[in-house]
Amino acid sequence: VSETALGRPRDARIDDAVLQATRELLAEEGFAATTVQSVARRAGVGASAIYRRWPSRLELIVTASNPGLDQLEIEPSGDLVTDLRRFVDTYLEKFDSPVSRAAFPGLLAVRGAESVEYRALLHEMGQGVRPAFRAALAAAPPEAVDPAVDPDTVLDMLIGAALYRVFIHPFTGRSHEIDDVADVLLRALRP
Amino acid sequence: VSETALGRPRDARIDDAVLQATRELLAEEGFAATTVQSVARRAGVGASAIYRRWPSRLELIVTASNPGLDQLEIEPSGDLVTDLRRFVDTYLEKFDSPVSRAAFPGLLAVRGAESVEYRALLHEMGQGVRPAFRAALAAAPPEAVDPAVDPDTVLDMLIGAALYRVFIHPFTGRSHEIDDVADVLLRALRP
Repeated sequence: VSETALGRPRDARIDDAVLQATRELLAEEGFAATTVQSVARRAGVGASAIYRRWPSRLELIVTASNPGLDQLEIEPSGDLVTDLRRFVDTYLEKFDSPVSRAAFPGLLAVRGAESVEYRALLHEMGQGVRPAFRAALAAAPPEAVDPAVDPDTVLDMLIGAALYRVFIHPFTGRSHEIDDVADVLLRALRP
Repeated sequence: VSETALGRPRDARIDDAVLQATRELLAEEGFAATTVQSVARRAGVGASAIYRRWPSRLELIVTASNPGLDQLEIEPSGDLVTDLRRFVDTYLEKFDSPVSRAAFPGLLAVRGAESVEYRALLHEMGQGVRPAFRAALAAAPPEAVDPAVDPDTVLDMLIGAALYRVFIHPFTGRSHEIDDVADVLLRALRP
């Protein structure tokens, strides 16, 4: 495995192997077991190759577990029910993977998790999606959406509902009705 | 510190000292640092005295960080706005303590966290409160609450919104408007 000199492109194969090993460890062994040493061992690279790319274990886990919420492509359909359900489904899908289920609470639990990358992860969970969400509300007919309702609050609640569904609902013993969330938000948006 | 023989009441002072030490460590040092050994050291008891009371570190943390959501006493006021805001405030307050902020994601992050006590903690977050929440909706005038709306879904979303507010919202850079959540739910409940 060759390292490159300053100014030349990094070996993307190392990046890929390290990120893949991190995801595998998160899914198979959990957050605590996903250390730089264990990732290096599984990826077949030296720990120094990892530290050259990520300043710490946390930044590595943030990159590897990035659910891509800043690159959501949800074009408004004009039908608010359809659009709300797509947003709810998207968040549920992003949170409810073995990697996310291990990485997300693990990152939240870290004390002093005040790094720029860490904030960026939480930030993008809602912020990158807001323009698409506003567009979906704007594309809906006026009788469906009261302009007095704050779209940011509604999206916060949609994300919160997805968090609840993925991390807490499995323990409540109740059945899992995804559409309920979209229906309640739809009702809230009515003029 | 005296241990008692089988059948006699346990020394409540040991319980209190251990639980207090656990809370202090969670708040000051975080989830990872809150081990049975470190709790024993801070409480001035032996690790065996702790293991006699709690089968593992996780159960100890669950007991010590129990936010008391199963003992909520919220009597319906008859005014739905008031009641919804009290529920939202209660959850925000329960989640937003230094102990809860360390314990809650830590417990969620633990792999194989399938112990009875652990499930009980998550369960009570919503379940113990449901009767009081249903009572609040039942006490509201009929023009405020559509019986077609599922109270469980609304409470799930209220809890999810509180989770979002405590664990994610501080990173979004937006201002913190507690009343927004109650207002959105109020709108959703309208017939």
